Amino acid sequence: MKRVYLDHNATTPLRIEAREAMIKAMDICGNPSSVHAEGRAAKSLVENARAQVAAAFGADGADIVFTSGSTEGAALTLAGRELHGAAIEHDAVRAWTVEDIPVSEDGLVKVEEPEKSTLQLANSETGIVQSLPSGLAVTDATQAFGKLPIAFNWLGAQMALVSAHKLGGPKGLGAVVMKRGTDLAAQIKGGGQEMGRRSGTENVIGIVGLGAAAEAAAQDLANGVWEQVTEFRNILENALEAAVKSPIFVGKGHERLPNTLCFASPGWKGETQVMQMDLSGFAVSAGSACSSGKVRASAVLTAMGYDEVTAASAIRVSLGPRTTKDDVLRFAETWLNKEKKHRARAA
Amino acid sequence: MKRVYLDHNATTPLRIEAREAMIKAMDICGNPSSVHAEGRAAKSLVENARAQVAAAFGADGADIVFTSGSTEGAALTLAGRELHGAAIEHDAVRAWTVEDIPVSEDGLVKVEEPEKSTLQLANSETGIVQSLPSGLAVTDATQAFGKLPIAFNWLGAQMALVSAHKLGGPKGLGAVVMKRGTDLAAQIKGGGQEMGRRSGTENVIGIVGLGAAAEAAAQDLANGVWEQVTEFRNILENALEAAVKSPIFVGKGHERLPNTLCFASPGWKGETQVMQMDLSGFAVSAGSACSSGKVRASAVLTAMGYDEVTAASAIRVSLGPRTTKDDVLRFAETWLNKEKKHRARAA
Repeated sequence: MKRVYLDHNATTPLRIEAREAMIKAMDICGNPSSVHAEGRAAKSLVENARAQVAAAFGADGADIVFTSGSTEGAALTLAGRELHGAAIEHDAVRAWTVEDIPVSEDGLVKVEEPEKSTLQLANSETGIVQSLPSGLAVTDATQAFGKLPIAFNWLGAQMALVSAHKLGGPKGLGAVVMKRGTDLAAQIKGGGQEMGRRSGTENVIGIVGLGAAAEAAAQDLANGVWEQVTEFRNILENALEAAVKSPIFVGKGHERLPNTLCFASPGWKGETQVMQMDLSGFAVSAGSACSSGKVRASAVLTAMGYDEVTAASAIRVSLGPRTTKDDVLRFAETWLNKEKKHRARAA
Repeated sequence: MKRVYLDHNATTPLRIEAREAMIKAMDICGNPSSVHAEGRAAKSLVENARAQVAAAFGADGADIVFTSGSTEGAALTLAGRELHGAAIEHDAVRAWTVEDIPVSEDGLVKVEEPEKSTLQLANSETGIVQSLPSGLAVTDATQAFGKLPIAFNWLGAQMALVSAHKLGGPKGLGAVVMKRGTDLAAQIKGGGQEMGRRSGTENVIGIVGLGAAAEAAAQDLANGVWEQVTEFRNILENALEAAVKSPIFVGKGHERLPNTLCFASPGWKGETQVMQMDLSGFAVSAGSACSSGKVRASAVLTAMGYDEVTAASAIRVSLGPRTTKDDVLRFAETWLNKEKKHRARAA
């Protein structure tokens, strides 16, 4: 039986547009820093991708610095600045913040000093979307980019982090988007690439993949693909809710990413559910992928005030633009069966 | 007429083995940190590539930390350590060193305090190969890996930097190779990937490309491909030397990379030669690619004691494993024609 991949917030399949553009880019051998024809051809691929990212992110006129992903982007924009942050941020952001901004029970964060703070645009585990205050220093837009319409130029943030593999591009590629004129000291130094902000020979194939994926993702958004996804997500949520009383649907009723469903079944460990569903052909996760290996309660849910037992029982189902209604109905049926068995064992 | 690419030290065409492995990896959608089947499949690609790199680099039992390239590797292993270094190092290394180790006229560097120093294995502009002292803290093996047989475990260095795109892998991918147990603080933090030394979702497609390219490069070495390359390089050198008196062949008679030829024609700017040769269908460079845009004399040659005029007149021709005898003979003929015209103009 065909496996059903419902872990798109962890990473997404490569979009066909990205795949084709990357394969084509494999024939271009030059180094973008070289002045000869081969170098200029490579440079032109990089600059074309930069324009694609800017257009998809509503960031015309902004500076785009390509990185190896949002984790590098977080280090580049946050290290040494001691910005205020909340405990619902990704670990790559939390590594650098002073974690003193409280989180409401609804998962919302109110920033007092925007210029000295960082705040994610959407949470990877719950999908909860934040309203960004004007003048915010840095926003982690990794999960939101490609799933929500974004106009960086109106977002209120000075800098934003994006990652290719969350929107159908390759893993290991991302960008920092900055209002023009933003001061940003390089951490990776040398050849002076990316306007001196990030040295190192450009990942041409990956950058091309990010550009193509961003363009295709923007097209999906314009075509209303995510409204369909929202419908399927809601069908799944309602199916689960109608069948059993126990799940707590985190973020329900609040503005969430269209594809994300996070629900807790206190007493039934998330990791166990993930493994059982995996054996039945469904890929979902408990917490974010990066911390999947570690057995511990979701820091995001505990920050929202859930107790450890509840937080440790949450799983995340995240749909993609190509997820079908049949996929989610099969998931619901299988999960509900396992839930019934779990209750029988626990009784 | 087919263009002739003779700038392999700047970057190399993607090897067919890397290309095929990367395209195959595009079908694997999981995040290597995810515990489900899709995640495990991605993880296994990464670990297979790690073994390929270790085998090709003679580093069985060493730790391999994947990075976005040697520039990141340099920052990761050198930043904040103030190691001693020489002026012939790559800019990505020079960004972090205390530059107080002298360079001999032959381009050789004698390290006094290995544990507190870094030294490249081979120079990108001249190809000159160094003997590494035992206990050396870090060696930049970027240009040597794939062109010379290397047994990291016997090299004497604690850590080595390698880059995929110098040996037929993709740009934007590299590794730090470390003796097991080496202490290395992460600079890019978050999810704890790469044993906590380098966080961020792994560049699976790129890592697979590095692994496949390293394996193919090792096979080329074993098959004597570079002995053939050396022969072609020497044919080129001799053809130029026989025809005109002026060129100074840097590093001739010393141990050099098999593919590299650096020669200076005082009074005729390297950049001019590069542009003229480009228009005639040949890709070569003046200085390293990273600093190609900048009009200035090669820091490598001035460190060796050449005057500014001579250093600014040097060009680098770097052959690849698929370069043919016809390629180098055509280059020689074209360059000699241009050199004659230059002399006529200058007279």
